[in-house]
Amino acid sequence: MTLHGVQALVFDVFGTVVDWRSGIARDAEPFLARHAPGASATDFADAWRRRYSPAMEEVRSGRRPFTRLDVLHRENLEDILPDFGIDIAAVASDEVEALNLAWHRLDPWPDSVAGLQRLKAGYIIAPLSNGNIRLMLDMAKRAGLPWDAILGAEVAQAYKPSPQAYLRTAEVLGLRPEQVCLVAAHNGDLAAARRCGLRTAFVARPTEHGPAQRTDLVPEQDWEVVAGDFADLASRLGL
Amino acid sequence: MTLHGVQALVFDVFGTVVDWRSGIARDAEPFLARHAPGASATDFADAWRRRYSPAMEEVRSGRRPFTRLDVLHRENLEDILPDFGIDIAAVASDEVEALNLAWHRLDPWPDSVAGLQRLKAGYIIAPLSNGNIRLMLDMAKRAGLPWDAILGAEVAQAYKPSPQAYLRTAEVLGLRPEQVCLVAAHNGDLAAARRCGLRTAFVARPTEHGPAQRTDLVPEQDWEVVAGDFADLASRLGL
Repeated sequence: MTLHGVQALVFDVFGTVVDWRSGIARDAEPFLARHAPGASATDFADAWRRRYSPAMEEVRSGRRPFTRLDVLHRENLEDILPDFGIDIAAVASDEVEALNLAWHRLDPWPDSVAGLQRLKAGYIIAPLSNGNIRLMLDMAKRAGLPWDAILGAEVAQAYKPSPQAYLRTAEVLGLRPEQVCLVAAHNGDLAAARRCGLRTAFVARPTEHGPAQRTDLVPEQDWEVVAGDFADLASRLGL
Repeated sequence: MTLHGVQALVFDVFGTVVDWRSGIARDAEPFLARHAPGASATDFADAWRRRYSPAMEEVRSGRRPFTRLDVLHRENLEDILPDFGIDIAAVASDEVEALNLAWHRLDPWPDSVAGLQRLKAGYIIAPLSNGNIRLMLDMAKRAGLPWDAILGAEVAQAYKPSPQAYLRTAEVLGLRPEQVCLVAAHNGDLAAARRCGLRTAFVARPTEHGPAQRTDLVPEQDWEVVAGDFADLASRLGL
């Protein structure tokens, strides 16, 4: 047994469980057709996502109190509109908000739901995402992600990769860090979890950033488990 | 439609969704057989539960920082053992802890799971219980309670009937109070929720406290919905 003593698997979500880039591009397309004809929807998704980590860094650094991701996403969206030649004053606020909720409507990778169902038979499964509770809830309800609970940044009141995000999640589960395993497609997330004492499982998602992706194609440390997808992960854990 | 504009149903759990008295008595029975032969298991359940609200009052009053219910239950359990002639020093700590987890193993009322499945098709459903996240998670996983998320006191960092317990739950859901309906078998819980602007649904659980129950047998205000059980509640909401 690779993960002896582990009782809970906690999951990075954006990129690991769901395909954010395709989902955002799909929902941005009709918006761009109206307001910025000819703009690339995947460029728009990439631009929006580039503001993600800097926005959370304001919170992680202590310069800003904890603010849920829906709010940061909305600010970031308003920030990038001018880059695509869109005048925010010319777009109805409701329309901006509808696009902001695209993060609640992301599709899982093809293996995610069936894999989580198998993993749920042997472990507590929960997201440990920077996405807020309502975002994760809407996504799960729409896509059928069978979480046992919705954990993550909003419950911990700390954004990954701050240690508090991992440690408070273990604490809420009533577990020691080594009884929890983070499943993620990102070496940096796994490295931060390992520094907190969690176990680690890497699942490659080589097209998260599109066909030309060059990061996180391979495990960069000796993670306890390395799997090709969630079906492979379940098999490796004997489920 | 009785609950026009409501997007989420949040549930009291102990007494409303699950039968705590029978469950605690069932798990206390073998413990008492070993340590206090002849003691009544239902008396034991009632004694343990009587300490519930006073323990939370220490937190609600601000005399004690937020402390999760598993910890309060353990303290309360140790407090009542002498009343049943049990010397805490004579019982292994693991055995006390195993009994403390009886709250994680409570059975739902017969209509709860099927009713929640129906309600889930039309609403976000989540516990708004004073039970902590891991307690609610274990209970749901064992009993098949199909929550969309686990909310409640630990997420809100406030115990019902403090207003913050209701208001922060609505806030986490991204909803205004009137878009949330509390489902509970307790008039006092519903009254506190109504004072915060939530809608209210009363479901009678006339044997929560055993065959001689005299409280909460009938609705004491004009709650928006009054139902006989969760199946009736689902029907009244058109599901």
